[in-house]
Amino acid sequence: MGAKSIAVLTSGGDAPGMNAAVRAVVRSGLSFGMKVYGVMRGYNGLLNGDLHEMSMRSVSDIIQHGGTALFTARSPEFNTPEGVQKAAATCRNLGIDGVVVIGGDGSFRGARDLTGAGVLCIGIPGTIDNDIACTDYTIGYDTALNTAMEMIDRIRDTTESHDRCSVVEVMGRRCGDIALHTGIAVGAIATLVPEIPYDFQKDIVDRMKAAQATGKKHFIVVVAEGVGKTQEITERIQKETGIESRATILGHVQRGGSPTLRDRVVASRMGYHAVELLQKSVGNRVVAMKGEQIVDFDITEALNMPRVFDENLYRISAKLSI
Amino acid sequence: MGAKSIAVLTSGGDAPGMNAAVRAVVRSGLSFGMKVYGVMRGYNGLLNGDLHEMSMRSVSDIIQHGGTALFTARSPEFNTPEGVQKAAATCRNLGIDGVVVIGGDGSFRGARDLTGAGVLCIGIPGTIDNDIACTDYTIGYDTALNTAMEMIDRIRDTTESHDRCSVVEVMGRRCGDIALHTGIAVGAIATLVPEIPYDFQKDIVDRMKAAQATGKKHFIVVVAEGVGKTQEITERIQKETGIESRATILGHVQRGGSPTLRDRVVASRMGYHAVELLQKSVGNRVVAMKGEQIVDFDITEALNMPRVFDENLYRISAKLSI
Amino acid sequence: MGAKSIAVLTSGGDAPGMNAAVRAVVRSGLSFGMKVYGVMRGYNGLLNGDLHEMSMRSVSDIIQHGGTALFTARSPEFNTPEGVQKAAATCRNLGIDGVVVIGGDGSFRGARDLTGAGVLCIGIPGTIDNDIACTDYTIGYDTALNTAMEMIDRIRDTTESHDRCSVVEVMGRRCGDIALHTGIAVGAIATLVPEIPYDFQKDIVDRMKAAQATGKKHFIVVVAEGVGKTQEITERIQKETGIESRATILGHVQRGGSPTLRDRVVASRMGYHAVELLQKSVGNRVVAMKGEQIVDFDITEALNMPRVFDENLYRISAKLSI
Amino acid sequence: MGAKSIAVLTSGGDAPGMNAAVRAVVRSGLSFGMKVYGVMRGYNGLLNGDLHEMSMRSVSDIIQHGGTALFTARSPEFNTPEGVQKAAATCRNLGIDGVVVIGGDGSFRGARDLTGAGVLCIGIPGTIDNDIACTDYTIGYDTALNTAMEMIDRIRDTTESHDRCSVVEVMGRRCGDIALHTGIAVGAIATLVPEIPYDFQKDIVDRMKAAQATGKKHFIVVVAEGVGKTQEITERIQKETGIESRATILGHVQRGGSPTLRDRVVASRMGYHAVELLQKSVGNRVVAMKGEQIVDFDITEALNMPRVFDENLYRISAKLSI
Repeated sequence: MGAKSIAVLTSGGDAPGMNAAVRAVVRSGLSFGMKVYGVMRGYNGLLNGDLHEMSMRSVSDIIQHGGTALFTARSPEFNTPEGVQKAAATCRNLGIDGVVVIGGDGSFRGARDLTGAGVLCIGIPGTIDNDIACTDYTIGYDTALNTAMEMIDRIRDTTESHDRCSVVEVMGRRCGDIALHTGIAVGAIATLVPEIPYDFQKDIVDRMKAAQATGKKHFIVVVAEGVGKTQEITERIQKETGIESRATILGHVQRGGSPTLRDRVVASRMGYHAVELLQKSVGNRVVAMKGEQIVDFDITEALNMPRVFDENLYRISAKLSI
Repeated sequence: MGAKSIAVLTSGGDAPGMNAAVRAVVRSGLSFGMKVYGVMRGYNGLLNGDLHEMSMRSVSDIIQHGGTALFTARSPEFNTPEGVQKAAATCRNLGIDGVVVIGGDGSFRGARDLTGAGVLCIGIPGTIDNDIACTDYTIGYDTALNTAMEMIDRIRDTTESHDRCSVVEVMGRRCGDIALHTGIAVGAIATLVPEIPYDFQKDIVDRMKAAQATGKKHFIVVVAEGVGKTQEITERIQKETGIESRATILGHVQRGGSPTLRDRVVASRMGYHAVELLQKSVGNRVVAMKGEQIVDFDITEALNMPRVFDENLYRISAKLSI
Repeated sequence: MGAKSIAVLTSGGDAPGMNAAVRAVVRSGLSFGMKVYGVMRGYNGLLNGDLHEMSMRSVSDIIQHGGTALFTARSPEFNTPEGVQKAAATCRNLGIDGVVVIGGDGSFRGARDLTGAGVLCIGIPGTIDNDIACTDYTIGYDTALNTAMEMIDRIRDTTESHDRCSVVEVMGRRCGDIALHTGIAVGAIATLVPEIPYDFQKDIVDRMKAAQATGKKHFIVVVAEGVGKTQEITERIQKETGIESRATILGHVQRGGSPTLRDRVVASRMGYHAVELLQKSVGNRVVAMKGEQIVDFDITEALNMPRVFDENLYRISAKLSI
Repeated sequence: MGAKSIAVLTSGGDAPGMNAAVRAVVRSGLSFGMKVYGVMRGYNGLLNGDLHEMSMRSVSDIIQHGGTALFTARSPEFNTPEGVQKAAATCRNLGIDGVVVIGGDGSFRGARDLTGAGVLCIGIPGTIDNDIACTDYTIGYDTALNTAMEMIDRIRDTTESHDRCSVVEVMGRRCGDIALHTGIAVGAIATLVPEIPYDFQKDIVDRMKAAQATGKKHFIVVVAEGVGKTQEITERIQKETGIESRATILGHVQRGGSPTLRDRVVASRMGYHAVELLQKSVGNRVVAMKGEQIVDFDITEALNMPRVFDENLYRISAKLSI
């Protein structure tokens, strides 16, 4: 029983650790006796037949590299019923009965549709933003966190030498997790996230003045991309506190780099779990992490789950960084 | 009610992230209106009165530093009934009714004894080895993992250029967690841990030959300190496989370095939780992490829990690295 | 003979390695039997008496830290004849007959003026931009180069995964050295510097198309801050080549971080050389690096030297990155 | 005139930056209209015909990787007159009239012999040890220095937390350059190099005690591999000073890792220079760095030059680290 021939692709924004997941899918599949295909540039590779059979050695020496060795791209054509049918036809022609899709919510919707067209699909959450509701953890998140933190550690050196305030924008359009955790790790005096409204006077200015009263002379403010207006916030801080303030937008640096151990290990575990599901002929599931366990959910249910922001940790962070 | 005046100390081997925990204890305590003392060089500081009152600024700019700003040392004197009484007397004289002890199992036994002498103690697990049974995570573990991994990534470059085998000894005397996770992250062909006996022929030589048959030319073998005999293993590999082999013992480098985000954030949460317990006049507890939750256990119960090695993950790792 | 009592200060923008220079000045001075003062926040510390005597231990464990432990600040008051006299008076009152000033050209003008007022001053070039004409090397330059390079290495991962072009702005207002060297190190298809005008079509678009014809699919363009218009350049590249393009401004991250070995060693050598000069009662000199030698120049002559951009290396870089 | 077809190989121990040199040779050669071959595993590839023609894209995305993409190996066969003739024959058959050899002194002797057999050879110094007399700088040296320094920075954290002494062995069998520069950069209390004999009491014990008298409590001693006996030295330090002491041998970690900017840029310049020489039909030369200039020497003369250790810098380092 079980899938005899599977494919793996990376879709949406790339994330460090995707290569570890691809490697785990390929090696697990081969160790279960499956044939495994690597699909190039997301769903596009299924549409235009850009995929090739993988061996144990096809994924050698990729675990330590950022980005994705399978490349990634958006695929407007796949987002049509015709596109889904065309991709399913590619799979049928090659005898591919299972596909592992590494990406975010958009990629999972594609996986659900392709399962509907007869090809068992398993989603693996891969996105640096940690913005997928069903899982505590997404591949790439730990690397992005550490990259952002190390960059702000560097900014701190110059901020401190000049008695300044640095306002730093980190990634996270809908999700404040990177900002919250980075803010704690760098000792930010204030952290602004899309999930929680802020009061400029109370949450920034008053906090800075209270800390100043205890002798603090340099400040870091972390702003999530989804809050934005980083330059405007910076100028207003300087105006209202009199402290020289500078803005930095960390940007795409946060997307790359050699994955941290956690990203490599979690991605390996998720990749293995995905293949185990296909071996049992199970499809339409998303692999997820709950605590330290790897679990899985129905894709449609997963897509409907509400994201929960850790407001308690947000409150604690305010007590520690003053 | 609750503790009015608390102290914090680091004991046993140092671990990256201890400073984040100290900072969290100091700032949480002050924010709850407590007086907070920093104790120097572990329990010794309680014996010889080497402790000082901390302010919000006493712990500024330490979150990003490895080691412990409170220093650490063994304390043979404290490990006697008289020593415990003397430490308790120091606390009484200064009005200290709670102590947070950051360290390993040995340090927790001290905390239990000091609680018995009338001073509420809370333990926080701080050791790079992750060798404390009651918790999924100990402070310093993530940094040590990433340091070991990055060092082996470097070794891999020269190993690959020369078509060699590198045998690398990582920390972990009783506990193979560093070896297991590092082995997965660097794609080790074999990982030897103290928890699981190995068969040289089957688990090392045969695996190397099977991988060689698929075209693999360079190999990493990870050995936990508790398994040891790294030089001997290296020579035997070279002799039995004919592949040039080199040994490296990573050693104390793994103990230091700026803590990773995870170590900073978990340490901050644990420090806060410890103070919350003292504020409720609770003592004799160890703070622990279960999944993503911060919980706590009775110290005596915690010390008696059996450590569980993740044999399932160990088996999966063998499937991925071939 | 020689100076009996000296002071050291850091002025202008901070740079990684300044601490190594301060440490070298303090320890060399003490080893020569001098009294040594550390001056806080640049020339301001001389104006308001914010300086303190240093011991061997005052500079312990700072060599590995970015920023400056003496802090830095602009000093409009010092830039007046009255300010200079006031600073000279502080020195006279404390018996300080020599001052080492670590900073850029602006700081050296202050050093020249203060020498004129009777206090022997020695300048040490400390600025990440490498924009000081008399020296091949300024403290902080190597760290900034490596930071910029590592950040662009990370950007490269995501650029490659998406077949994109990334346009990255690095520091260097008047001086293209960071851009030139970083461009070589990351394999930039084009590097724009303030010293050399560029032809958008020929130097960017045509080069990208030529490389594309050989199979290249992702591109890095490095732009020096002094060239600017990074967003505009990015949009124009996308429009004229059809390749999806993204801009990143690396910003203040490049100013901080633990100094590289080269910055620590060169700073140590320069600090020692500066004190040797003061010991011989020589003032009004700038310490400089020529090849691997530490030399010194008259400050006024140094300030009048023309900067020379390495146009030959710029031409070579274009041959290598295609 | 000039070479029409050239080859490039890496030989001896690998070094970070070799890939940048290979890339520069390939791209410079192609830009001069030459045909360029990449030779696998050092001189072996010339003996057994394991070489292939390179395009602009053959060296894409290797500049940031440690190790050598052409692999390296010893070649006992090549070290015979017959071996040299066989290699020369391979070159003649393929029309290769120039070879660039990246490696150390042993590799240069091979290049000299191969030039004697009618194939113009140019040597590029690539070895982390900086042990080649004719050049101020060898490819890989800067990366090895920074790796060693960063590892000792980590060791320092735990050394300081425990008030210990750490004795650290760095690479350098015949050459103390890595030890000297690393010792300065980490503030080692003593640095032992093969070029200068040491007096245990005066150079280690007395220095530690003098520093202890000023309040210093933790110590780093750096020992070059060529001095050795690191464990023995460590035990003797503990015995004679009473300070708890630990030994670490950094080992092969120092050979790998992504090259620093300096290694990438110098390697690029040297690779370009080597091809320029071949284009002028010049052979039997070693490319070298003098100050910031790229120059070249006759191979035989270069091999006979005496290495000069910077004793003056060694003396200065002793003044700064106390």
